[in-house]
Amino acid sequence: MYNVKVFITLKESVLDPQGAAVKDSLHRLTYNAVEDVRIGKYIELTLKKEDGDIDQQVREICEKLLANTVIEDYTYEIEEDIPQ
Amino acid sequence: MYNVKVFITLKESVLDPQGAAVKDSLHRLTYNAVEDVRIGKYIELTLKKEDGDIDQQVREICEKLLANTVIEDYTYEIEEDIPQ
Repeated sequence: MYNVKVFITLKESVLDPQGAAVKDSLHRLTYNAVEDVRIGKYIELTLKKEDGDIDQQVREICEKLLANTVIEDYTYEIEEDIPQ
Repeated sequence: MYNVKVFITLKESVLDPQGAAVKDSLHRLTYNAVEDVRIGKYIELTLKKEDGDIDQQVREICEKLLANTVIEDYTYEIEEDIPQ
């Protein structure tokens, strides 16, 4: 079994209105130390062990479905779950 | 400057219809190894250095605004950005 964590973020050049709204709210709550907020997605996948390259498979899943690579970047971490 | 990464996930007992929809889509794309998908949020905060406990401040920000602690869990990582 593999536990995969995928992090999807907007590219730096892309405006993040949701992040800007959260920043304004934090300022209204008097957290003025907050200089920037960027909001992305965090996706946990559980995959069965199968033949084939897990790394390649996760990259395909990200490119085809999870991330919009025109405006988003993604990174991932793969963890093998070894049954006791 | 602090770079803070916040991960917000639905509690285990809470249904995740968005994750279920993504899982179904992945199966239709023939990624049948995918057993489970859970979708959460990933938030990057940039904070100015100020007096006071950064850890406590981030916890407050999560509890008051970023996470709905009734149905969501959160974890975070704080990284100090040392200017060169």
